[in-house]
Amino acid sequence: MLREFRYKQAILVRTDLRMSKGKIAAQAAHAAVSAAEECRKLRPDWLEAWLSEGQKKVILRVESEDELRRFYEEAKRMGLPASLIEDAGLTEIPPGTLTACGIGPAPFEILDKLTGRLKLL
Amino acid sequence: MLREFRYKQAILVRTDLRMSKGKIAAQAAHAAVSAAEECRKLRPDWLEAWLSEGQKKVILRVESEDELRRFYEEAKRMGLPASLIEDAGLTEIPPGTLTACGIGPAPFEILDKLTGRLKLL
Repeated sequence: MLREFRYKQAILVRTDLRMSKGKIAAQAAHAAVSAAEECRKLRPDWLEAWLSEGQKKVILRVESEDELRRFYEEAKRMGLPASLIEDAGLTEIPPGTLTACGIGPAPFEILDKLTGRLKLL
Repeated sequence: MLREFRYKQAILVRTDLRMSKGKIAAQAAHAAVSAAEECRKLRPDWLEAWLSEGQKKVILRVESEDELRRFYEEAKRMGLPASLIEDAGLTEIPPGTLTACGIGPAPFEILDKLTGRLKLL
């Protein structure tokens, strides 16, 4: 199967919180749905194209709350759909902790300008 | 913060594949978005209620492809939104491997009948 992707979504996850794999999966899923909903309002054409291509996603690591917040703010400044995830804190971590950020879907070339240097989780 | 949830989404992930935490997060995110899209077609009222409650999710473990497939088929039979995730297999696992299944959002009492006995990942 050879697919060409033109759109992707980046999901940034904090590694400094040392969350379990189940917790990370829940935060990533939350970020994916929330950023997709933002995209529906902002650029429904991007969302439709991404869904029809099969929803390419990359899960990327950030090391701190500061770094997570900076990427979120820069994404907003660039006009990209983005959603910052705050955990309800019922398990593992304190309430209100920022855990993850979904950015996009957006065209590869725009998203890579922002997140291209981050490492895969 | 005391929240009352009436809707949730269950994300079933295969543990027998021994995927990395990044891979698990990507499959869970994919399942969450796909099942939410199914819900949008099937029961948009459930989707809106779930989004407005803050998207309660549980990440649950299944042990085999057979078990994953059985839950998916039973969800469909019960009229629940459900989406089975097949990995493109570019990394870690063979192409076409079934990795995860998103079920819901749906009301707690209906979803729990199906997935209530599964363990958290």
